[in-house]
Amino acid sequence: MAIKVHGLAVAACTVRVLLCLHEKGLEYELVPVDVFNGAHKKQPYLSLNPFGQIPALEDEDIKLFESRAICNYLANKYKDKGADLLRSSSLKESAIAEIWMEVEAHQLNGPLRALIHQFVLNPLRGKVPDEKIVEGELEKLEKVLDVYEERLSKSKYLGGDFYTMADLNNLPYLLYFMKTPKASYVTSRPHVNAWWNDISSRPATIKVSEGMTMI
Amino acid sequence: MAIKVHGLAVAACTVRVLLCLHEKGLEYELVPVDVFNGAHKKQPYLSLNPFGQIPALEDEDIKLFESRAICNYLANKYKDKGADLLRSSSLKESAIAEIWMEVEAHQLNGPLRALIHQFVLNPLRGKVPDEKIVEGELEKLEKVLDVYEERLSKSKYLGGDFYTMADLNNLPYLLYFMKTPKASYVTSRPHVNAWWNDISSRPATIKVSEGMTMI
Repeated sequence: MAIKVHGLAVAACTVRVLLCLHEKGLEYELVPVDVFNGAHKKQPYLSLNPFGQIPALEDEDIKLFESRAICNYLANKYKDKGADLLRSSSLKESAIAEIWMEVEAHQLNGPLRALIHQFVLNPLRGKVPDEKIVEGELEKLEKVLDVYEERLSKSKYLGGDFYTMADLNNLPYLLYFMKTPKASYVTSRPHVNAWWNDISSRPATIKVSEGMTMI
Repeated sequence: MAIKVHGLAVAACTVRVLLCLHEKGLEYELVPVDVFNGAHKKQPYLSLNPFGQIPALEDEDIKLFESRAICNYLANKYKDKGADLLRSSSLKESAIAEIWMEVEAHQLNGPLRALIHQFVLNPLRGKVPDEKIVEGELEKLEKVLDVYEERLSKSKYLGGDFYTMADLNNLPYLLYFMKTPKASYVTSRPHVNAWWNDISSRPATIKVSEGMTMI
């Protein structure tokens, strides 16, 4: 049975899982969830994820939710296939990668999600971005990107000189953010920009980004 | 050289690391960071964590920050000592534990942190809790605890029938939350309450909670 991903190719957290599947060169079936009609908040979807959020994954007898947990599972199961995303054969390398995975989750994810909400979701709902929110979130984003700039002046990728989940996890929101009028927050920082150019031109990223048609 | 933890025994994210060290029965030195005078926002601390947040950890030549990354590092390095917190010898068990680690990080952590802010930090600063914020966060907390109740009706702990990082990661904020007037959100849910009684009475938890004197 092929791996089943329940989600949407346009949705950021589904994108995270798809990026991982493509990096690993795995076959999968994307099962669309009709979130526009609330299918994610009803059974049978709630039996896949009690929080009613996409994506969820089925692989043989394993059912998983939370995109980062799904990606780590795939990276562990298919360790020797495609990119070595968790560096688990080295205690030090995996620990460093994990720091930057946590940084993405707890420092970058919040402001980027809020900005995507303002620049991508608000217009879809006929609203303009709220300038005060945008300003506050850009201020937070700036502080995180300054740390990224410093970090990426010392290593090619966030986790070290190799592409890992610490880089991949940034892509879902960053791919949308780079289509907004604020992309210069990335392009004006030389090391962050070089990193962005690198990770956004990977074959897996190009392939998955084709489905990200919200803007 | 003993493991050095830079942080404060009263601070939630330091608590997470101390819980892990005690579960593993590891010797460590707690190096206090004078956050009240802003030492965490200056050098030399910033070289340990560029975001200026506690805790940070030094172990031989490895320097780490982000409490969850630190805990996973300790759990990996000392896999065979004390509690098996990541279940990494089973792909399925580790994946299930990881789902619930992500749930804590992305669903429970936000409302609990906000509530601790209102009930613990506000009074320390001479402010009363903001009723509107409290109400909104309790509503979010309730939804997560309902999912926990359902989950804990099927397994003794969040990750399965064994104590893992998925349980431990809840303790730092929960230990403070249970001292607030809203503890009944936990005690009124029979399975969540039984789980709370279990995880809060572990020797490591009792030991670390002695230092949590903010309230």
